Amino acid sequence: MLQNQGREMMIVTSGAVAFGKQRLRHEILLSQSVRQALHSGHNQLKDMSLPVLEARACAAAGQSGLMALYEAMFTQYSTCTAQVLVTNLDFHDDEKRQNLNSTLQELLRMNIVPIINTNDAVVPPPEPNSDLQGVNVISIKDNDSLAARLAVEMKADLLIALSDVEGLYDSPPGTDDAKFIDIFYPGDQQSITYGTKSRVGIGGMEAKVKAALWALQGGTSVVIANGTNPKVTGHVITDIVEGKKVGTFFSEIKPAGPTVEQQTEMSRNSGRTLASLHPDQRSEIICHLAELLTERQEEILAANKMDMDLAVNAGHLPPAMLNRLSLSPAKLNSLAIGLRQISVAAQDSVGRVLRRTRVAHNLELEQVTVPIGVLLVIFEARPDCLPQVSALAIASGNALLLKGGKEAANTNHVLHKLTQEALSMHGVKEAVQLVSTREEVEDLCRLDKMIDLIIPRGSSQLVRDIQRAAKGIPVLGHSEGICHVYVDANASIDKVLKIVRDSKCDYPAACNAMETLLIHRDILRTPLFDQIIDMLRTERVRIHAGPRFASYLTFSPSEAKSLRTEYGDLECCMEVVDSMQEAVDHIHKYGSSHTDVIITENEDTAEQFLQQLDSACVFWNASSRFADGYRFGLGAEVGISTARIHARGPVGLEGLLTTKWVLRGDGHTVADFSEHGTMKYLHENQPVGQPLAGQRDSN
Amino acid sequence: MLQNQGREMMIVTSGAVAFGKQRLRHEILLSQSVRQALHSGHNQLKDMSLPVLEARACAAAGQSGLMALYEAMFTQYSTCTAQVLVTNLDFHDDEKRQNLNSTLQELLRMNIVPIINTNDAVVPPPEPNSDLQGVNVISIKDNDSLAARLAVEMKADLLIALSDVEGLYDSPPGTDDAKFIDIFYPGDQQSITYGTKSRVGIGGMEAKVKAALWALQGGTSVVIANGTNPKVTGHVITDIVEGKKVGTFFSEIKPAGPTVEQQTEMSRNSGRTLASLHPDQRSEIICHLAELLTERQEEILAANKMDMDLAVNAGHLPPAMLNRLSLSPAKLNSLAIGLRQISVAAQDSVGRVLRRTRVAHNLELEQVTVPIGVLLVIFEARPDCLPQVSALAIASGNALLLKGGKEAANTNHVLHKLTQEALSMHGVKEAVQLVSTREEVEDLCRLDKMIDLIIPRGSSQLVRDIQRAAKGIPVLGHSEGICHVYVDANASIDKVLKIVRDSKCDYPAACNAMETLLIHRDILRTPLFDQIIDMLRTERVRIHAGPRFASYLTFSPSEAKSLRTEYGDLECCMEVVDSMQEAVDHIHKYGSSHTDVIITENEDTAEQFLQQLDSACVFWNASSRFADGYRFGLGAEVGISTARIHARGPVGLEGLLTTKWVLRGDGHTVADFSEHGTMKYLHENQPVGQPLAGQRDSN
Repeated sequence: MLQNQGREMMIVTSGAVAFGKQRLRHEILLSQSVRQALHSGHNQLKDMSLPVLEARACAAAGQSGLMALYEAMFTQYSTCTAQVLVTNLDFHDDEKRQNLNSTLQELLRMNIVPIINTNDAVVPPPEPNSDLQGVNVISIKDNDSLAARLAVEMKADLLIALSDVEGLYDSPPGTDDAKFIDIFYPGDQQSITYGTKSRVGIGGMEAKVKAALWALQGGTSVVIANGTNPKVTGHVITDIVEGKKVGTFFSEIKPAGPTVEQQTEMSRNSGRTLASLHPDQRSEIICHLAELLTERQEEILAANKMDMDLAVNAGHLPPAMLNRLSLSPAKLNSLAIGLRQISVAAQDSVGRVLRRTRVAHNLELEQVTVPIGVLLVIFEARPDCLPQVSALAIASGNALLLKGGKEAANTNHVLHKLTQEALSMHGVKEAVQLVSTREEVEDLCRLDKMIDLIIPRGSSQLVRDIQRAAKGIPVLGHSEGICHVYVDANASIDKVLKIVRDSKCDYPAACNAMETLLIHRDILRTPLFDQIIDMLRTERVRIHAGPRFASYLTFSPSEAKSLRTEYGDLECCMEVVDSMQEAVDHIHKYGSSHTDVIITENEDTAEQFLQQLDSACVFWNASSRFADGYRFGLGAEVGISTARIHARGPVGLEGLLTTKWVLRGDGHTVADFSEHGTMKYLHENQPVGQPLAGQRDSN
Repeated sequence: MLQNQGREMMIVTSGAVAFGKQRLRHEILLSQSVRQALHSGHNQLKDMSLPVLEARACAAAGQSGLMALYEAMFTQYSTCTAQVLVTNLDFHDDEKRQNLNSTLQELLRMNIVPIINTNDAVVPPPEPNSDLQGVNVISIKDNDSLAARLAVEMKADLLIALSDVEGLYDSPPGTDDAKFIDIFYPGDQQSITYGTKSRVGIGGMEAKVKAALWALQGGTSVVIANGTNPKVTGHVITDIVEGKKVGTFFSEIKPAGPTVEQQTEMSRNSGRTLASLHPDQRSEIICHLAELLTERQEEILAANKMDMDLAVNAGHLPPAMLNRLSLSPAKLNSLAIGLRQISVAAQDSVGRVLRRTRVAHNLELEQVTVPIGVLLVIFEARPDCLPQVSALAIASGNALLLKGGKEAANTNHVLHKLTQEALSMHGVKEAVQLVSTREEVEDLCRLDKMIDLIIPRGSSQLVRDIQRAAKGIPVLGHSEGICHVYVDANASIDKVLKIVRDSKCDYPAACNAMETLLIHRDILRTPLFDQIIDMLRTERVRIHAGPRFASYLTFSPSEAKSLRTEYGDLECCMEVVDSMQEAVDHIHKYGSSHTDVIITENEDTAEQFLQQLDSACVFWNASSRFADGYRFGLGAEVGISTARIHARGPVGLEGLLTTKWVLRGDGHTVADFSEHGTMKYLHENQPVGQPLAGQRDSN
C-alpha cells in the first residue's frame, strides 16, 4: 500500500464495512462533513439491507440502486467509486485472488473507493438449516467472512464490522450477568456464551467473532460496533477511526494490567471492606501513609526527578506547571502533616449517627453516615494531589479511582504504590486504583453505572470539560467563579481598599477572586472612587467598564465584552448600581452563585444583602478569598462546589458521605399499625452521639 | 390538496426546505428509517451548499449532481422526485405562476416529491451591496423568500426553514442578554435586535424572519431551526413534524398565558421573595391554604366532578386511577390536616443555622439552610398532590413549577388558584406556577439552566422516564425498588411469616415491597420452609424460582427470568444462599440499593448484615414496607430517593433545602493571615440554634 496518500478505504456493503487505515489523498475527504456523509451513507445502506436481501434476485435488482446511491454521494465529494462483486470462491483460486488483489490495489492507488459485495446472483443457494428461514434469505454471514478475507488479503489495518448491538457481550445481551467486552483477546473466547440466533438476516454474533478472529490472525485489527442507531452511536465510524472507545476491539496483545472496568470493580469490592473497618483502622492507614511519605522520601523524589527531567527536556511546560509538578522534602513534609489532620477527621466521619428515632416500642431507627461508593478523582500535573485525595477517600471509606496527569506518571506510580502499601495493613490494598493515562476522561465518564461521584481537581476549564462529559454521574466542583464585590454608599474607605485589593490581587487565577466590582452611584466622583481607581492602577489591574459605568465617565476604559466574564487574571469589570437591591439583581443576573461580598458600615443593608443573595458564599466586610475549606475551618478540604444539591460552597469530608437508614425491630409489620392494628407510632427523637452498635462490635 | 394521501412535501434546496403537512401515500415513507434518510439527505445538501453556491456557473453545474443524489436516495424508497427550477420572477407573472402551481399540484397528486431550486443560471446577477462579497456569491436570501412564496402559493401547512443557529434570539446570539424565542408573534417584531450579517452565504436571520412573516400572513406556519449540526439537532425535521419544541415557531395567535420559560422566571423571582419571608409567614400561607381547602370545598368538588365525568365518559381510566382522581370532603379534610403538619415543619426549615464557627477575632462564619431554587414537580392523575407539593415547596421557600396529569385539569386549575390566593397574602402569588398540559415533560427537562431539581411523584415508570429525559437536572426519586428479605438460619418462625407476608402482600405495587425472598440453605426441607410456602400460596403469591432454588427441588416453580425483576404484583422470586455473607453479595449484585431486610435472632449476624449492606434502608426483623417518610417520622414526606448524593431513602423537607455560607467580618483579608500577617485562624466551633440575625430583623 502506498503511504502518505491519506486513508484508503474499501466498503463491503450489507452488514460489514472495512476501512483501510490510511488517509485518502484529497484533503476534503478528511473534513468532518465528508465523514458524516460517508457515515450516513452507510446507515442508509444498513437500513436497506433487509429488504434488499430478501432473495437473491432481489439482491441483484437492488445492486444497481445501491451503487447509484453510493456513486451519487461520493460524487458530491469528488470521489469516485467502483463496483466489485466477488464470491468466497474467488479467494480459493490463486489466480482469481491475485486478479482481485491487483484490481483493488489499482483502484485504491487511483483514489477510487471500491464498493464490494457478494455476487449474490452466482453464489450457491443458501445451505439448508444454515438459517432459521433459510429459503428466503441469503446468508449474510458471507459478508462478515468476505470482509475479513478482503481485509487480510489487502493487508488492511482496521476492519470495522457494524452490527445491531453495541458489540460483544460475555453472555447473550439482556441476560442477568451479560457484561460488555471492551477489548477481546483470542484467548478469552471460551469465556463467551452465545445466544441462539433469534433474528435472521442480522448475522449471528458468533459468525462475526469467527470472522474477526480470522482477520486478527491475518494481521488486521477489528472493531465490532453498532451501526443501526445513529441517535445513539453518532458517528460511529469516525469515532472508531479517531480511536474512541466504541464497540468491541479485537486485539492480539493482552495488556499487563486490568481494564479500567476491572479496576473499578476491584476498588468497589475492596472499598466495601474499607467501609466496614473501624474508624480507627482507617485512621491508622492514613497515618501509615503519612509515615511512608517521609520514610520513602528518596524513592518518591527520584521518581519525581524523572518526571521533572522529562518535562524540562520536552520544554513545553510553563514554569508555574513545573513548579506544581516538582516535589521537595519540604512539600512532602507539609503533605504528611495534612494527612495526619485527615487521619483525625477520619475518626468521626463514617458511621456517625445523625438522627435516632424511636418509631415504636422496640422499633428503633438510625440515620447513619456511610461512604458514597466509588469516587473518580481527576487531577492535573500536581502529584501531591494523589496522597491527599487518597487520604480523603480512605477517611470517608470510599473506593477511589485516580486519574492523574501524564506529566507526573512516575511520581504518581510511586505514590500510588505507597498508598496501596498503607492500605494493605488492613487488607484493603485494592480500594485505591490508579487508572493508566491511556484512558481518556470521556471513556471513564461512560462508566456511569459503576462510578458514583466525579471530583475534578484542577483548573475550572478541567471542571467544565468534565461536567460536560459526565452525563449520568454527579460532578463535585466549581465550574465558574464570577465573584462580585459590592461597595455600598456607606462603606469605610479603609475596608474597601483592603478588601477589593485582597479579593482581586491575592491570587487572581483562583475561582474565589473578584471579577466584577459593583459601586454605588453615590461613590462616583468622591475621593473614595479616586482611591479605588488609584489602588487598582498601582496593582496593575486592567479595568473593563460596564455600560452604565462607561456612560458616567467622559473618558472611560474599554467597555467589558460581557458582564459574565471570569477574567482569572489582573483584570476586572466595574459597574455602577443605584442601590444594594440593584446590586443583588445584577449579581443574580450575571453572577455564578459562587461568592459575593458587600462592603458597608450599615448593618441593615448588609443583612438584607446576606439574606437576599442566592450564592453559595455571601460575605460582609471580608475578602471573597475566604471562600475556601481550610479558611472555613472544615479540616480536610474536598473542593468547592457550585452545585445546588448535595454539597455547596467549600466542601469538607461530609461531601464524600451519604447516609443510610438502619431500622431494628422485633417482627414489626406495617399492618400492626393499621386502623385495626395493635401498635401506634411514637416517633420520639432520641439523643445522638454514640457510635453504631455494629462498629462497637467489630473492634 | 388531496386529503388522505399522507404527507405531501416539496423541497426547496440550498438552505430552505418546505414540507407539506400531509402524509405521503406509501406507508413505507412513514417509517423512521425513511425519515432519517430524508433528513440526512438534507444535511448533506446543507453541507454542500457553500461550495455549490460559490458562483452561478458552479450552481448550474452542481444542480445535476444534487438531483442525482436526491433521486438515488428517494429511489431506494420507491419515491420519485422531480426537478423544478424557478425564479422569483415566475411569481410575478400570473400565467407562469398558475402553470407552476398546477405542475406542482400534479406532481404531488402523482406522489412525486418536487425538488425546487432557483434557476440560478437565468436570475439577474446579485445586486451590488446586497452581500458583503457580492461578486462571488449568489444571494441565498432568494431561497428563503422562494420557499415562503411557494409555501403560500401551494397552501402548505408548514414551512421549515433550516439555518445554522437554533432559531431566533431577541438579540444577536452570544451577547449577554440574548434570549432564545420559542414562539414568535408578528406583533413582537420590534423587540428583536438583529446583528450585523457577518457570515455571507448563510442568509441573514432578518431575511428569514421577513420571509417567515410573509408566509405566516399567507396562512402557512413556519419553524426556523438548526439544520447544520446533526449531533445536536438529531432528526430535526421529523421532530418538528411530530410537534416537538425545536427551533422558533411563528404563530399568528398569541396564547392567553405566559410561556413556560416566562412562568419559570416569574416563579424564580417570586420564589426569591418567598425565601426571604420570615418562617412564620411561610407557615401562615400554608395554614391559609389548608383553610381554603375546607372553605372552598364546593368549588373544588365541582371542578373535580367535571374531571370525573369526563374520565367516566371517556371510559378509558381503570378504576384504581378513577379512585385516585376523585376528591371527597373526607379527602380534602385529611389533606388540610397534612398541610397543617407541613406548616409546623415550615417553622424550622429555611434559615436554620447548621454550623457556626468563629474563624478569627470578629470574623464569624455560619452555614445556613436555604431553598434549592426552582423545583419542577411532575405528578399523574392525583389532584391532592397539588396542594401537598405546593405546601412542601412553600415550607422550604422554593419556587415551584407544577405539571399535573391532564385528567385532573379542572381540579388542578381550582387548587392552583387557591394556592395562589394563599400566596398572595404575603405578595408571592407567582411563586407556584401550574404548567399547562400542552407542555411535554421532555420540553420542561430542556430548561436545565432554569430548574434546579425535578421531583416526579407517581409510578416508578414515570420516575424512570423522567430520569432518562432530564439530562442536566438532578432528579429526586426512586427508579427501582428491588427489595430483598433474607431469612437467616436462626430466624423465628413467627417473625418470618409476619414480615414476609407484610413485605410482599401489604401493597405489592409499592417500591418498598419485597421482590426477592432469600432463604438460608439450612431452612430448606424444614417445617419453616413449608410454612413460608403455605403462607405465600394462601396469599396467592406466585413464586419464581432462582437457579439454585430450582436445583434443590424435585418439582420447582417456573424459573425466574431474571434475578433483577421488580414484579410490583403478588409475585416474587425465591433463591437459596449458603450464608448471610452470600445474601449480602446476592443483594449487592442483583438489588437496587433501596430497602433490604434480614430476619434472624442472632444479633451478631444482624449487625454484620446491617453494616455491610450498601442500601438506602437496611432493616432487622422489620417489614420492608417501613421504608417511608411518614413511618420514619420525617413529618412531611417529599419522596423516596435511590440517588446516592444529596438525599437517600425516605426524604423529608430537608431534601428540598441546600445551604449557604454567611461570613461576617470587619475588613478582613486573607493577606492578614499570611506568614507576615497579623491575624491567626481560631476556627472555634460555636453552639448553633439561634435564628439568622437577618431573619430576626425582617419580622
